[in-house]
Amino acid sequence: MDSYRINLPADGIPRKWYNVVGDVPDALTPPLHPGTRQPAGPEDLAPIFPANLIEQEMCSDRWVDIPEEILQVLALWRPTPLHRARRLEEALGTPAHIYYKNESVSPAGSHKPNTAVAQAYYNKVAGVKRISTETGAGQWGSALAFGTGLFGLECMVYMVRVSFEQKPYRKSLMHTWGANVLPSPTDQTNAGRKIREEMPDTPGSLGMAISEAVEDAATREDTKYALGSVLNHVLLHQTVTGLEAKQQFEMAGESPDVVIGCVGGGSNFAGFAFPFVPDKLAGQDIKMIGVEPESCPTMTRGEYRYDYGDTEKMTPLLKMHTLGHTFVPPKIHSGGLRYHGMAPLVSALVDKNIIEAQKRHQIACFEAAVQFARTEGIVPAPESSHAIRVAIDEALECKKTGEPKVIGFLLSGHGHFDMSAYDAFFADKLEDYVYPEEAIAKAMKTVPNV
Amino acid sequence: MDSYRINLPADGIPRKWYNVVGDVPDALTPPLHPGTRQPAGPEDLAPIFPANLIEQEMCSDRWVDIPEEILQVLALWRPTPLHRARRLEEALGTPAHIYYKNESVSPAGSHKPNTAVAQAYYNKVAGVKRISTETGAGQWGSALAFGTGLFGLECMVYMVRVSFEQKPYRKSLMHTWGANVLPSPTDQTNAGRKIREEMPDTPGSLGMAISEAVEDAATREDTKYALGSVLNHVLLHQTVTGLEAKQQFEMAGESPDVVIGCVGGGSNFAGFAFPFVPDKLAGQDIKMIGVEPESCPTMTRGEYRYDYGDTEKMTPLLKMHTLGHTFVPPKIHSGGLRYHGMAPLVSALVDKNIIEAQKRHQIACFEAAVQFARTEGIVPAPESSHAIRVAIDEALECKKTGEPKVIGFLLSGHGHFDMSAYDAFFADKLEDYVYPEEAIAKAMKTVPNV
Repeated sequence: MDSYRINLPADGIPRKWYNVVGDVPDALTPPLHPGTRQPAGPEDLAPIFPANLIEQEMCSDRWVDIPEEILQVLALWRPTPLHRARRLEEALGTPAHIYYKNESVSPAGSHKPNTAVAQAYYNKVAGVKRISTETGAGQWGSALAFGTGLFGLECMVYMVRVSFEQKPYRKSLMHTWGANVLPSPTDQTNAGRKIREEMPDTPGSLGMAISEAVEDAATREDTKYALGSVLNHVLLHQTVTGLEAKQQFEMAGESPDVVIGCVGGGSNFAGFAFPFVPDKLAGQDIKMIGVEPESCPTMTRGEYRYDYGDTEKMTPLLKMHTLGHTFVPPKIHSGGLRYHGMAPLVSALVDKNIIEAQKRHQIACFEAAVQFARTEGIVPAPESSHAIRVAIDEALECKKTGEPKVIGFLLSGHGHFDMSAYDAFFADKLEDYVYPEEAIAKAMKTVPNV
Repeated sequence: MDSYRINLPADGIPRKWYNVVGDVPDALTPPLHPGTRQPAGPEDLAPIFPANLIEQEMCSDRWVDIPEEILQVLALWRPTPLHRARRLEEALGTPAHIYYKNESVSPAGSHKPNTAVAQAYYNKVAGVKRISTETGAGQWGSALAFGTGLFGLECMVYMVRVSFEQKPYRKSLMHTWGANVLPSPTDQTNAGRKIREEMPDTPGSLGMAISEAVEDAATREDTKYALGSVLNHVLLHQTVTGLEAKQQFEMAGESPDVVIGCVGGGSNFAGFAFPFVPDKLAGQDIKMIGVEPESCPTMTRGEYRYDYGDTEKMTPLLKMHTLGHTFVPPKIHSGGLRYHGMAPLVSALVDKNIIEAQKRHQIACFEAAVQFARTEGIVPAPESSHAIRVAIDEALECKKTGEPKVIGFLLSGHGHFDMSAYDAFFADKLEDYVYPEEAIAKAMKTVPNV
């Protein structure tokens, strides 16, 4: 039988995370204190993160041991399969070999638990009893609810009110794992009360929810805050996907010419692509493509500068590609990709031309998603469909040139909780959106001059 | 690291299905023609099933080769993992070893694709262009949409109207895989039109939807009908789960003392348990428990007799445990377990005391489901929670006796599309229901005397 799937043995989970800073030291840029705009030290982050994660955030070792307790939980769904998309290849009539690493098999249905489990563990050993976070569409909130549930921590999720009301099943999932979920803005925080007074009918926003979650952590002794993307330690935790994939490509006797991931905050792409950076630095010809939505073109139309991570200017300034912290992307269905900024490590590698940034429209991505579902059988998350779109485009290019390239992409999650987006696609209700130059220039004006 | 998961290599998918009729020949009872009540021959089934599946339905060979084309599709998610539920064991404080075979990782989220893929393949090679079926909650309909999608067949799903309206996302999933889905009763069939005339406001029922799907197949040259459980060939296709699990138990150096599955029509339980029947017949002490809902107690309170498979008396009579074809179970959240009858092969093995039948209330099952979700991390389908309940009960019994039994159960699916049921559970809105003797006696009176 031709191979359709490459499985690692149960003990094939990596024992160490790969830290790209070990190979590209100057990719590590210091965060700046939001008040003083001076480099922020561990003490500046201590109110909201435990010391062990702050240390990891600053770490420049190439390899970081994964604690046994984390491996035991990851073993619930890891190693994940690497699939050869033979039916998709056949449908495209391409000589390319298309592979996808399938992160949809995690209990929360995405790559997010790779870091949620690690963050829950490190908080637990640091003596933290309760973790606060924000969530938009709910992928990160449910992953953290899962992780904290397994380590016996309390979890407080501030969920953007409009999502709370429109996506009730993500909320139910978090409840089932034992988390507390409130529609943000709430009346439980100063930030929330202030916003409700000023805007009683607000549908909420990620910026507001971040403010509430950070305030919650900063004002309670037993609580720390957790973030699902962007930060170095989050990207580090995601490298299990790329490290496994490298083993699996080797088992298949292949070496990827192109690796692709969708990019919102950058963690799923980084986790998949970074482990291939050493090969690229050693001279191997690997194209690494991060794909963002046309409607939130952070890397392709933003600037590489210091900016705030949130609209309320509560977070440290990070050096990253940004559209400006006041930039509000339209309500595309890939909620997970609607972020004005970018992981600093991804930004640095884009700046160094190690990583290539591309962007795609959502309708073309849904077309790719449906073609993928009908050939490969998995219904992808709208976010993941951006990676699929580019993988198909690359494979169609190979059809023209006759090159049998090896293309690998990360399937970051399934679409079981996003079926209303597919309904909108089939009903021709989706729109593509390109921001006019002026709109981006206007948001960029709010980026501080540092 | 302690083992938490036993993975088979990618080529570990069984190459043959196991047919329990080869070991228990008199378990095979002939279906009777609904009109003449004489044994039905292949020609009686030919209007609705292709010849190759009719042959499989009557087959008494112990082993049946799995065609390469089916294996290639199963390879998308098979072999599935066998997990050791160490966190659940610890929470229970039991000396038992609890294992679960995880069928939730299939693209449709349940065990159903194991047979949907096989049925789509056999219809395709028989020259069938289009398959009709019915679905209640949508698990089977979405699995068949997935299977037919991959083999390029058209799929027509008659979905019970109330589910069509209340569970729109299962419908969206079927659309994404390319199936046509209509709320039943429709105006596309004689049966549907007749029902709509008589009952314009009917919410629909599985009985009505079966009538429509069967009429569709019987009256169109290009179309055959497919059923997701009950029949011998369906159970046969499901044995990949038990065959894989046997290999995995061996890898773990264990041998199960108890194997458990939930039972609606019987296929997931049979697929998991039947491959252990030869060991039991050879004298090994294995308890095989099929778990049904208290509110639909087919095996525990029904009789082992010939009865119709549907309310409209269109199907052949099958010898099975039945509560009477007019029996209407209450609307519990395990929609997949609401069936008045039982797979004839499961019924025969219950009758021979090879299989033990148990029943559980839904609230106790949801309690088990939440405990499972919070320890093992997977949110189970309400149906699967019946198996979990009994696994936990067995493990708690071991705690009393000190016996370190090896308990294995089939996790038939995840609950991503059933989160409203969890909401109802957390809101204390679930009820347990026991049918009074008179109600069951009344439905049993409609069973024909054969």
